[in-house]
Amino acid sequence: MRNIKLIIEYDGTNYHGWQRQKNALTVQGVIEDAIFSLTKEKVSLIGASRTDEGVHALGQVANFYTNSKIPPEMFSYALNSVLPDDIVIKESSEVDYNFHSRYLAKGKKYRYIIYNHKHPSALLKNYSMHVPYELNFEEMAKASQFFKGKYDFTSFKASGSSAKTSIRTIWETSLVKKDNLIIFEICGDGFLYNMVRIIAGTLIDVGLGKITSEDIISIIEAKDRNKAGKTAPPQGLYLVEIYY
Amino acid sequence: MRNIKLIIEYDGTNYHGWQRQKNALTVQGVIEDAIFSLTKEKVSLIGASRTDEGVHALGQVANFYTNSKIPPEMFSYALNSVLPDDIVIKESSEVDYNFHSRYLAKGKKYRYIIYNHKHPSALLKNYSMHVPYELNFEEMAKASQFFKGKYDFTSFKASGSSAKTSIRTIWETSLVKKDNLIIFEICGDGFLYNMVRIIAGTLIDVGLGKITSEDIISIIEAKDRNKAGKTAPPQGLYLVEIYY
Repeated sequence: MRNIKLIIEYDGTNYHGWQRQKNALTVQGVIEDAIFSLTKEKVSLIGASRTDEGVHALGQVANFYTNSKIPPEMFSYALNSVLPDDIVIKESSEVDYNFHSRYLAKGKKYRYIIYNHKHPSALLKNYSMHVPYELNFEEMAKASQFFKGKYDFTSFKASGSSAKTSIRTIWETSLVKKDNLIIFEICGDGFLYNMVRIIAGTLIDVGLGKITSEDIISIIEAKDRNKAGKTAPPQGLYLVEIYY
Repeated sequence: MRNIKLIIEYDGTNYHGWQRQKNALTVQGVIEDAIFSLTKEKVSLIGASRTDEGVHALGQVANFYTNSKIPPEMFSYALNSVLPDDIVIKESSEVDYNFHSRYLAKGKKYRYIIYNHKHPSALLKNYSMHVPYELNFEEMAKASQFFKGKYDFTSFKASGSSAKTSIRTIWETSLVKKDNLIIFEICGDGFLYNMVRIIAGTLIDVGLGKITSEDIISIIEAKDRNKAGKTAPPQGLYLVEIYY
């Protein structure tokens, strides 16, 4: 029996998130069905990150066990031939039997895209958050730097999260502006439920002048979800890469 | 009576191009209907460029005459409130009575996006051309420079084009690579029917090594459509800007 690792890109627009659900179209469910159609095996596909409804992925990682004789690197081609075109297997390979895409992930990189214009974008409506008000980019860029480090991120955790600890280490953040887009990237050893979207919402509050960049320090210290900004919408969020 | 100029972004995926047709959804038709729903006037919307089915626009320009009392700069908001979300009016303004978006255009800028990866892109399937083979970017970049200048572009004109002359001046071209994307931009005083898509198809032939960058010179000189490459598909093409 082989352990096959997949690197997956998907457009989350038409899916109820990653995780398999009864009576709802999910990315995990669709890929498991595609594997079944090729191998007649009911596999359990282990995903590195349980992305929410509407969230996109450029580099989701998942693994599954199979007795199939399909050569590991050919699984990508075989699966793409049966998958809908908004889910693409970018790479497939055989990995060590003990490889587990979620437990062994050392870190993740996410991107959040803001479209800043008085009118929404026709092309990026499902791929960005629209902010129609003027944003102070310089102040947002300063604010984004305060997330770097090892902190208790309780203020940036959705209620209902079941994580054992809220301490996470953020390795790097960046914020760049290109025409009407503001692109935020963040990588770290792990993220709490909705953490990136709450950080994005808080950065927007900084951009709008509701709070200052230095307020980020006291918001983190407060360990209180109510001190941070709103949860930014899912369509602006991209899971970019998983590190092992 | 006022002459109103619109700057328009649209996702061409779901439209049979710009130009109004009976029994087919077109961008012009949908905007004319939106103007009617606001003003009860059956206007004729003059577009700068008749983009084809599947082609996108970031800065299409169009104008129309109206007796409506809607303030010119508010037309964008009023129209966006009734338009589908894949067509957005980015700006509206009153212009000189004699302004004509097509006849007075001094030039245009187009972008063509190639996704170069062994597998297609889930996120950009409707927004790029997929090329699964390795492309020689340096040679393509060289080739792109040979299009600059004033030439008879008959070799890059679709048969059936009704243009009086095939002489056009290309002011500038650029080719950049970013991750798996190759982005070609071209601006000039005008473009023949399918000209940008045929140039893109020819650049891909250069990238594949079917022809060399210097072959572009003799292809232009031949004035023969059969010497140039295939017409690249519409979903990679963007009308970026119209110059006046």
